[in-house]
Amino acid sequence: MDMTTESQSLSDALGQIQAEVDSLFDALLPVPQDTRARLVEAMRYAAIGGGKRIRPLLVVATAELYGVDRNQAVRAGCAVESIHVYSLIHDDLPCMDDDDMRHGHPTVHKTYDDATAVLAGDCLHAMAFEILSDPDMSGDPFVRAQLVECLAKASGKDGMAGGQMMDIVAEDEDYDLHTVTRLQQLKTGALLAASVEMGAILGHVPPEGRNHLHAYARDIGLAFQIADDLLDVEGDEEKAGKALRKDEEQGKQTFVTLMGADKAREQARALVDQAIGHLSGYGPEADLLRSIARFIVERDR
Amino acid sequence: MDMTTESQSLSDALGQIQAEVDSLFDALLPVPQDTRARLVEAMRYAAIGGGKRIRPLLVVATAELYGVDRNQAVRAGCAVESIHVYSLIHDDLPCMDDDDMRHGHPTVHKTYDDATAVLAGDCLHAMAFEILSDPDMSGDPFVRAQLVECLAKASGKDGMAGGQMMDIVAEDEDYDLHTVTRLQQLKTGALLAASVEMGAILGHVPPEGRNHLHAYARDIGLAFQIADDLLDVEGDEEKAGKALRKDEEQGKQTFVTLMGADKAREQARALVDQAIGHLSGYGPEADLLRSIARFIVERDR
Repeated sequence: MDMTTESQSLSDALGQIQAEVDSLFDALLPVPQDTRARLVEAMRYAAIGGGKRIRPLLVVATAELYGVDRNQAVRAGCAVESIHVYSLIHDDLPCMDDDDMRHGHPTVHKTYDDATAVLAGDCLHAMAFEILSDPDMSGDPFVRAQLVECLAKASGKDGMAGGQMMDIVAEDEDYDLHTVTRLQQLKTGALLAASVEMGAILGHVPPEGRNHLHAYARDIGLAFQIADDLLDVEGDEEKAGKALRKDEEQGKQTFVTLMGADKAREQARALVDQAIGHLSGYGPEADLLRSIARFIVERDR
Repeated sequence: MDMTTESQSLSDALGQIQAEVDSLFDALLPVPQDTRARLVEAMRYAAIGGGKRIRPLLVVATAELYGVDRNQAVRAGCAVESIHVYSLIHDDLPCMDDDDMRHGHPTVHKTYDDATAVLAGDCLHAMAFEILSDPDMSGDPFVRAQLVECLAKASGKDGMAGGQMMDIVAEDEDYDLHTVTRLQQLKTGALLAASVEMGAILGHVPPEGRNHLHAYARDIGLAFQIADDLLDVEGDEEKAGKALRKDEEQGKQTFVTLMGADKAREQARALVDQAIGHLSGYGPEADLLRSIARFIVERDR
């Protein structure tokens, strides 16, 4: 597949998953006829129409390897995305990163208020597990229980939220490359890895058969964060739809401050090649996963 | 059973569940050797050693009816309690109810900081679902998936957090008794009902066999909130371990403002009798559930 065809396929795949995720969130979030309306409107504001939907795409692309029903994969993808969206809402709060813009729009607490933002995040958090545990997710309760276990571990203290804590105290610490890597493996890597893992769970792949997928996910997770650090330094605020240059302002160590931009870029590319290498056992059915890996370092937002 | 024996048994049962819940939280929350230590310390501060543990006791008391292994029931009880504790942490935040004291100690955001409190709440939220989906919870994945489904629904927008949203906007609304009842059924009732339901799920009781337990839970949920409203007006701040008289300050309608204290007290007692009536199909094995119902309106904190 040549590069133009590849980027066209990826762009189609992103367009398709974005539409599917928006449509499922829309169905899951009817606005109630009582004073919870404001809460659900805030959830919809945050969940519908924003974001690249990389995590749902990873679930779908992995599930496709094993012939999983697409609706099931989209549902599981929406659960991961609910967690991702809730974490952005809480992260943007004044007492956290204090960000006013996200995906080119005012953040939830700016559009609504801080209390509504806290609760909208909490409700999207709960909704992720409602989606996964619902019999509509899968007729197989073992699959449902495994999906919940995977996502709960990846999002809690030993995953995403633990990484956010390390990130919050980063201003006062002098992290070395080892610690920054660990922080990012938790903060960003855990949820990306869970997305791939959930695709494998839907495909009934036993844990011992998931090693190459784990390795792929670990490498793209790190590459993703290096690319994010580079975007924070070199990116365009308008394209990014959020404030940049924050790491420097806050005096945080990142892959770029620790390695320099050139070395970081080189490292990200090497990780992508390595990630793609882990997929060598697959044929063209893994092309979407390969494209996602390349996209992760080439994106401009 | 005479009243003295009954209150002794209940007090023993409360003491036992408090020790078991503390011990399991202690085991689930080892402090990591990295900069997440502050996060896990905040989780421990909130989760260990405070609270009456009514929700875990309800899980255990219901599970006992069906001969469920006690360790399983305590584990499920800890999951409900994790949700309850996370909701208190977020509720106490300055942007929410802005409370400085809880269970007689400074609240999490006072002892740590707002960002740590947000994340500690988020991590306890995730931990609830980690506990329930872990194979240690039950060897039966259908039980695990059902427990998750029950707790996720009870805590999200159509349960506890939805009720909190209604409560937050209550200052600006003129709620009638119907709306206050609905608010409280969501805010407090949903999680109490889920506790009973989770005991029944552990006991492999099919949904159609849970009606009398549902009815019991609905009645004690409402009685619990009426008792809380009475405590807010008549209670002792020192015993309560938190600020009281807040509903009045904020101009919120409650059962007491809408019905008057005497009528509210009468209503709470009638609900308790009604709740106990729903247990008429059981013998002495349901005495603990009966004692809990009575305790709910007679407690002083």
